[in-house]
Amino acid sequence: MLQVGVMHLFGADYGHETMNSRINPDRLMDDLRTLRTFGASGNGVVRPTFSPQDMAARQWLRDRMSEAGLNAAVDGVGNVFGRSPNPGPALILGSHSDTQPEGGWLDGAMGVIYGLEVARALLEDPNTSHLAIDAVAWSDEEGTYTSCLGSTGFVNGLTADDMEATNASGESVRNALRRTGLDGVAPARFQPDRHVAYLEAHIEQGPHLEANDQRIGVVTNIVGIRGVRVTFDGVQNHAGTTPMHLRNDAAVAMFHFGSRLQDRMAEAAGPLSVWTTGVVTVEPGAESIIPDRASITIQFRDPSDATLDRMSDAVMRLASESNGVKGVDVVATPRREKIAPTAMDPHLMHHIATAANARVPDHWCEMPSAAGHDPMVLSHHLPCAMLFIPSIGGISHDFAEDSAEEDIVLGAQVLADAAVSILEDLES
Amino acid sequence: MLQVGVMHLFGADYGHETMNSRINPDRLMDDLRTLRTFGASGNGVVRPTFSPQDMAARQWLRDRMSEAGLNAAVDGVGNVFGRSPNPGPALILGSHSDTQPEGGWLDGAMGVIYGLEVARALLEDPNTSHLAIDAVAWSDEEGTYTSCLGSTGFVNGLTADDMEATNASGESVRNALRRTGLDGVAPARFQPDRHVAYLEAHIEQGPHLEANDQRIGVVTNIVGIRGVRVTFDGVQNHAGTTPMHLRNDAAVAMFHFGSRLQDRMAEAAGPLSVWTTGVVTVEPGAESIIPDRASITIQFRDPSDATLDRMSDAVMRLASESNGVKGVDVVATPRREKIAPTAMDPHLMHHIATAANARVPDHWCEMPSAAGHDPMVLSHHLPCAMLFIPSIGGISHDFAEDSAEEDIVLGAQVLADAAVSILEDLES
Repeated sequence: MLQVGVMHLFGADYGHETMNSRINPDRLMDDLRTLRTFGASGNGVVRPTFSPQDMAARQWLRDRMSEAGLNAAVDGVGNVFGRSPNPGPALILGSHSDTQPEGGWLDGAMGVIYGLEVARALLEDPNTSHLAIDAVAWSDEEGTYTSCLGSTGFVNGLTADDMEATNASGESVRNALRRTGLDGVAPARFQPDRHVAYLEAHIEQGPHLEANDQRIGVVTNIVGIRGVRVTFDGVQNHAGTTPMHLRNDAAVAMFHFGSRLQDRMAEAAGPLSVWTTGVVTVEPGAESIIPDRASITIQFRDPSDATLDRMSDAVMRLASESNGVKGVDVVATPRREKIAPTAMDPHLMHHIATAANARVPDHWCEMPSAAGHDPMVLSHHLPCAMLFIPSIGGISHDFAEDSAEEDIVLGAQVLADAAVSILEDLES
Repeated sequence: MLQVGVMHLFGADYGHETMNSRINPDRLMDDLRTLRTFGASGNGVVRPTFSPQDMAARQWLRDRMSEAGLNAAVDGVGNVFGRSPNPGPALILGSHSDTQPEGGWLDGAMGVIYGLEVARALLEDPNTSHLAIDAVAWSDEEGTYTSCLGSTGFVNGLTADDMEATNASGESVRNALRRTGLDGVAPARFQPDRHVAYLEAHIEQGPHLEANDQRIGVVTNIVGIRGVRVTFDGVQNHAGTTPMHLRNDAAVAMFHFGSRLQDRMAEAAGPLSVWTTGVVTVEPGAESIIPDRASITIQFRDPSDATLDRMSDAVMRLASESNGVKGVDVVATPRREKIAPTAMDPHLMHHIATAANARVPDHWCEMPSAAGHDPMVLSHHLPCAMLFIPSIGGISHDFAEDSAEEDIVLGAQVLADAAVSILEDLES
């Protein structure tokens, strides 16, 4: 699967020496640790979008960007955008600063501080101080309200539905912006005549890099995501007085479906496919009542649309076969929103791979991203690329999420090297 | 299973003629329909224990009992107890007047109005006006706070834990009694020198009588109920980045368990056994997170303790076999409270069977009760018996619950006949 250190994308130009700006490891780690203090919970963070902790973190990020010499502001949908004083062509570097309900300290945050640090490091170095890096902290990549809210706003893609999307407490985006005083604040917007590319660094959130002794992942594409909701409708009745042969039990139908689903998906899947039944409901949920309604939501991911089609077919076919067995109606409904696989830009990948190979030859690889990220939105408007560093134990979306400090520092330096080489390429 | 019309319990004394008091069908149906108006919702009723609707119904029942010549009061735990002015020996007749969250109009209510009507009919008839029938409407048989609260109080069996039991809104029994002004009101209490037996009529809540063209069921015993909670503990992780072979998915383990459970229980079960998985949980319940925790609660019922033991063993064995598979810990915990099977009193059953046979020869049968009822508590203190009438479509615990009017009237008359013959037997 992983194409380890193979230079199949480009010629043998790895020996090329650039006067690369050095990032400042201590400053990088200090800023990352300070960002964690906004909503810290042990080693993890609780900083959901538009929470007081999130808003305070965004103000702090704005101030740090300003101190770095960027023209920084929190925009009308919560993005912190720090525009370089230099004219374009400019790279946008960043990630999101919001977290999962029980989030790790690096998911998003690391890529944000990388953007800040690379912008700073380049401005400090006389060799690169003329290059333009715009740093960004997107809002709500994690979908507390709606996934990739900030990057969607940046490309002017928000719909009325997006503004009415609600968090778990029922607050809409519109009301959250009013509550936080962002309502009416000017948006940061994509400028086609300035912004030539978007680069994002992120923890891998999976075990591949660690397991293969790799330190940098050059992302080839972001997997597509689809979902199907399967509902089971039986008949509610008394759990004592209804004989077994007269039951139309929605929960039992769901158990059989969920059990058989595993083999069916394995047959349809490719080697990189994953599928998850994270949301399961049984109603009315009383010990003495035979359930009349159950549901499973099946989410599945793969880099290939053809494989996603096969997996979708497998779910639909199993639902159709299960329908009506023991008087339970089984209905499978594909989710309206499909996330198509997103290819990263080969030219940008080349620069990241070159930078990685120069720093850690034979310890980088190409790999897909199995998690969603803002380039899913942005790549429709400008070339995007991503860089991964290893996650310890592959753990993320959990307080225990962590990465080795040397990997965090290496990732920032590789990103800085790549940013310089991309922008210098445009000059030559 | 059902011993249809077989006189195996007693000799051939069905021809015995008693001057039976006639119940008043119109009055019976009018009172039943009036009781429905307290919390009516279509054909059904929402009258949970100690709700305003329930308290109003209890005041109304008290007044109807008083009008019938009983010394009636709502007691300190909500029971409406109407004591006959006649000296003992006395029969207690009744049921509960509270309902399920979405209850039928007859579950409990019918047996309560039967008690009132039989007490009235006997007092009106010069041949039986000397007999003592104490009518009762127990509180909270359905367990809105704690099952069989009222009958447990009647036999002075309430514990401190019972008083702290809460409803779905978190209100304790203690606070509910304070709120309703029942706190400190005198309890109605079982009097061993007066009360010789308890009789309860109820809808069957199942399909047996209807399916076998029977109109009266003479209950032989109330099934025992046990429960086992099975928990599945895996590892929470990212639904995109965690490869299938590295997952410890609690939901998948639960699906396999729930699916295999059906065959295992069928092997262990007897012909009257039922088992239900009404409460199923999967956490944290997000589409993009692999669930780390799931649970199934398995409730099972049978008239035989030996069969209940076999079913319990089957659950425990399957849990033990499933434990550790794909890194998911499976733990099965039997519920502390077991409800043992409760045998009805053969002498009382004889009288009910005789009365049924006289009214509808060949259209009555003996049968177990698959639902729990207050005799589970009361039978430890005095002889108990129950009479069932058919449920249309076997439906109960549902607004659609209903019975044919002719069956409702027949059941009241059979109960009156049986009450007279039981009390006359004691005189002779």
